[in-house]
Amino acid sequence: MGFIDTARGILGEAHVLTGPDASGYGRDFMGKYVAAPLCVLRPGSTAEVSTLLAAANDSRTPIVPISGNTGLSGGTYAEGAAMLSLARMNQIRDIREDARIAIVEAGVVLSVLHEAVQAKGLNFPLTFGARGSAMIGGALSTNAGGSNVLRYGNARALCLGLEVVLASGEVVDLMSELHKDNSGYDLRDLMIGAEGTLGVITAAVLKLVPLPRAYATAMVAVPALGDALGLLNRLQEATGGMVEAFEFMPGSYIDAHLAHFPDARPPFDARHDINLMIEIGATAPRDTTPGPDGRVPLASHLEAVLEEELAAGRVLDAVIAQNQAQRAEMWARREATAEVSLARAPQINNDIAVPLDKVETFLERMRQILPTVDPGADDTCVAHLGDGNIHYIVYPSSDEAALQDRLMERVEDVVAELGGSFSAEHGIGLTKLPSMRRRKNAAALRAMQAIKAALDPNGIMNPGKTLP
Amino acid sequence: MGFIDTARGILGEAHVLTGPDASGYGRDFMGKYVAAPLCVLRPGSTAEVSTLLAAANDSRTPIVPISGNTGLSGGTYAEGAAMLSLARMNQIRDIREDARIAIVEAGVVLSVLHEAVQAKGLNFPLTFGARGSAMIGGALSTNAGGSNVLRYGNARALCLGLEVVLASGEVVDLMSELHKDNSGYDLRDLMIGAEGTLGVITAAVLKLVPLPRAYATAMVAVPALGDALGLLNRLQEATGGMVEAFEFMPGSYIDAHLAHFPDARPPFDARHDINLMIEIGATAPRDTTPGPDGRVPLASHLEAVLEEELAAGRVLDAVIAQNQAQRAEMWARREATAEVSLARAPQINNDIAVPLDKVETFLERMRQILPTVDPGADDTCVAHLGDGNIHYIVYPSSDEAALQDRLMERVEDVVAELGGSFSAEHGIGLTKLPSMRRRKNAAALRAMQAIKAALDPNGIMNPGKTLP
Repeated sequence: MGFIDTARGILGEAHVLTGPDASGYGRDFMGKYVAAPLCVLRPGSTAEVSTLLAAANDSRTPIVPISGNTGLSGGTYAEGAAMLSLARMNQIRDIREDARIAIVEAGVVLSVLHEAVQAKGLNFPLTFGARGSAMIGGALSTNAGGSNVLRYGNARALCLGLEVVLASGEVVDLMSELHKDNSGYDLRDLMIGAEGTLGVITAAVLKLVPLPRAYATAMVAVPALGDALGLLNRLQEATGGMVEAFEFMPGSYIDAHLAHFPDARPPFDARHDINLMIEIGATAPRDTTPGPDGRVPLASHLEAVLEEELAAGRVLDAVIAQNQAQRAEMWARREATAEVSLARAPQINNDIAVPLDKVETFLERMRQILPTVDPGADDTCVAHLGDGNIHYIVYPSSDEAALQDRLMERVEDVVAELGGSFSAEHGIGLTKLPSMRRRKNAAALRAMQAIKAALDPNGIMNPGKTLP
Repeated sequence: MGFIDTARGILGEAHVLTGPDASGYGRDFMGKYVAAPLCVLRPGSTAEVSTLLAAANDSRTPIVPISGNTGLSGGTYAEGAAMLSLARMNQIRDIREDARIAIVEAGVVLSVLHEAVQAKGLNFPLTFGARGSAMIGGALSTNAGGSNVLRYGNARALCLGLEVVLASGEVVDLMSELHKDNSGYDLRDLMIGAEGTLGVITAAVLKLVPLPRAYATAMVAVPALGDALGLLNRLQEATGGMVEAFEFMPGSYIDAHLAHFPDARPPFDARHDINLMIEIGATAPRDTTPGPDGRVPLASHLEAVLEEELAAGRVLDAVIAQNQAQRAEMWARREATAEVSLARAPQINNDIAVPLDKVETFLERMRQILPTVDPGADDTCVAHLGDGNIHYIVYPSSDEAALQDRLMERVEDVVAELGGSFSAEHGIGLTKLPSMRRRKNAAALRAMQAIKAALDPNGIMNPGKTLP
């Protein structure tokens, strides 16, 4: 009996898709990777995942897990493989307010969880543009980041416990709610960010935080990126670490945004090279109780720091959102990145990280190097500046593969010289495999390969991804 | 040529100790484990560690890493093994203030690092009683916790990058300074908490935080532990997450403390069952600039919350430290735990964690169960209550091993029923091996053993520890 028949025996006919029913799953979010999967499995429980993986392991059938299909690195490319969709495992099992945890299945959509916990005055602060489709399982498997990492950490930092099914079908129960649990090797963090190559994440215990009662959001122009890091540090001290977002958009991105959205307004009267979007969030009544003028004290804290910096010449211009509509406009400008940057082709999208104090150096070096490799090339970026994470986009003069490879290698060279990483928050998948081969510490790669062989000896879990 | 001669060839005579010179290393902090090591190796560089491990691997010589020798679980027991001391690798290589990182070698003593970064207005917030001897390498290998985990996380959360030498001698360079770095499996977190069984940590990149400019510290008595969790959540909201320590001491601990230190003063005029030590720290001038009365606003925030809770009957008594001497007295009471509890024998020290909202349930169940197992037994505890971490100490009526095993098993039963862990922050070492065997998820144990075999095929790294 073939694997598809075995799977039908486990899940029933309705939950094993083949042919045209399966083909939609074979196309990734960006339309960059298109594959013909063997079939799509839609289990409804951890027990079913376990039985399916044991059967796949016996028959050496490759398994590619998929949840919201919003990955940016081709991590769910599944030519000839059985795709395992977590979409039916979408229960929020429990929200415990006093303990500030949510217990969820892997198929819970991020924005669904946001709404459920916000109704209780709490927040699950992992957020990014694709939150309306992205699911917890994929977010953990990618160790997703986004715009609030600065304050709350990435997916890894927000996960207390995990349930994972290994290639053998064994269920590793690490569903700890504990803030301290030193009982052997940290399998949880090993599975987070492993992109489904070591097992399938089926459930998680997530940390919740108090939902800010008020936000202060501003667009700020500064003379140089070095001033931006100083501003971040002063804001963190002045507010006691309340900075939720500290995002950088160069003038070139603002230009492209205005060109793409004819109704959009520029952030300032004058054009600036270094534009920051800053958001501060507070829970404490002393910061969030509106005064006689209707303004919250939080906004005054932000204003006071910005005024000092303006006076010192370290800030050129600043606009604080006066209402929710103005705040939404600031966020919309920032979150339009994918749409704005994808509108122009060909392009090379580098999701890189450098030390916090090296972002300026990176961009300066690229400005010098780019014309030497491709005189017709152009670049732009947006950056989670508070994390040193730059989405650095190069528009080469042609779609010649060799030219694009040369450009990527030069970006990697500069990143490596600065002690950075060629992959910050989008994962390796297929897209970054050449970079892993070229750039990752060789001893680390050998150790990863040894771990992969130990936990998935038949190599059925998301084969060909993450590790060269 | 034997291993000792090989090691002398690598390090020179002076740095390979044997016989009486080595025997001091064979005795652990508590005097519970005493062993005769083969020798003690004192390398001065990562390259020397690498060469030593390669030689040990070739000759199948067991290696037991040791740094400050302050472990509480027998993790450095080294009968017949070569102990590898990190003490000479004690350089603080760099402190980068704007990027808020310190780059250190494994042998840096925790309190030495504290002083170095505090001189620059920053803090490395990992702290516990043994900070004057404990070293970074051991703190990371144990994933140490302590009193500030609530706000800043444990050792794992404070480590950005790591350098590890594997059994083969290969140097895995993960010395990332990055806040986001998704490039393959999370080897850093795998090595943190592995207690030297997967490799030797030789250096680390650590996160620094702004040093609070002011603290508000209080002793608070509440009617029940349930009220304590509510108080913690209200304080976090009122201050915006500034609670640094939230420690619980039962009346029985206060009694024992007073008996042990005749000059000590009780925290309150009346005796209370539920005593909390709470500390809040702030960096923002609006919280830390003294008013006309010389008091900092931070103290008023704490006072305001405590007054509301007093009025509502959820707090029975409260004393806020009025000066540094009173603050020091509160900390001294809390940090005397080891001395106070070790003064009475026999004892069973359980370092356990339960969900935040289950601490009260755990202690109530033990109060019922203890007399049924050993009518003459007595208990006490101190707890990092904000982390659900209880140092639960049982004084059995005799030192009969079978009785002590039964008591430990019953503690573990209750912990397991509540979804807790038998090991919170002290590690497994030798002491908790029976608990690992009995209690850890079997599939997780098998996965750990597979990883151990993959990375240390000859089993030379700290053999017999952590994994049954």
